[in-house]
Amino acid sequence: MSSEKAFQDYYAPAFSHCYGCGPSNEHGLHIKSYWLDKEKKETFARYTPKPWHTGGYPENVYGGLIAALLDCHGNGTALAAGYMHEGRAMDSEPALRYVTGNLTLNFKKPTPIDGELEMRAKITEVTDKKVVMEVSLLAHGQVTVDGSMVCVRLPATRPDASRAAA
Amino acid sequence: MSSEKAFQDYYAPAFSHCYGCGPSNEHGLHIKSYWLDKEKKETFARYTPKPWHTGGYPENVYGGLIAALLDCHGNGTALAAGYMHEGRAMDSEPALRYVTGNLTLNFKKPTPIDGELEMRAKITEVTDKKVVMEVSLLAHGQVTVDGSMVCVRLPATRPDASRAAA
Repeated sequence: MSSEKAFQDYYAPAFSHCYGCGPSNEHGLHIKSYWLDKEKKETFARYTPKPWHTGGYPENVYGGLIAALLDCHGNGTALAAGYMHEGRAMDSEPALRYVTGNLTLNFKKPTPIDGELEMRAKITEVTDKKVVMEVSLLAHGQVTVDGSMVCVRLPATRPDASRAAA
Repeated sequence: MSSEKAFQDYYAPAFSHCYGCGPSNEHGLHIKSYWLDKEKKETFARYTPKPWHTGGYPENVYGGLIAALLDCHGNGTALAAGYMHEGRAMDSEPALRYVTGNLTLNFKKPTPIDGELEMRAKITEVTDKKVVMEVSLLAHGQVTVDGSMVCVRLPATRPDASRAAA
């Protein structure tokens, strides 16, 4: 696993500044997403909340972090899905980037802050313009949040969008 | 406005640790929500993104922050709605607290990072168990994100939930 490149590590320079998952953002969370099962189109990522990421109760994670973790994992998943849809490698040109069109989350149970969290996504539809998926968050192996995302492809019309601009 | 207490400043100690909006969280965002129009059941809050809160493109805000801002503003709005529903003051006992049941967001336009953002909520339904509302985010006076939230009331069964436990 440690030798495998995360989806986010394929972002072109212009797309790598996201606070949640951009490798270039020094302050950021650096969320890293990977294939869980490529056949089943399932992906995962893991993140350990900081002690100050408390929510409504101090033993739980705050909702905004959960939304951010799933949002960034979803767009990373969409990236992988987009290249797969086009039948080309993740480091090929033109570089792809997706952003959130819709994020729908159901908070089923409180998410405890005392351990590593796992984000999951299952791709259900890919077109030239968007990727649709189901998402979920697990804590201690139990699903605490589920939902769905629609990620929209950005047009590759920026001069700095190419990796050659790095 | 500066003399008016924000909804979040009414949270009992046990409920004041949220990274997004808890007054007790030193590291947090300290989101402050207020009535915009009590008759119309509309609320607002404002937040200026930090330079590192960049998103897919560096001139835009990252989606996870947007979700966090609306999530915390929504639960603060639910708090005000809950006390109003019970016909009592926000500093009365027992202390109320809401957490997110559902968060649904539609990202209509990119949200620029170069200025103050405004979060809005309009309460559409209040019961003994939940508050339902429409939410939106504005940048430079334009709506960039809209959606809805269902906030669920937490049971007041914790000994530290009372302000007397402070």
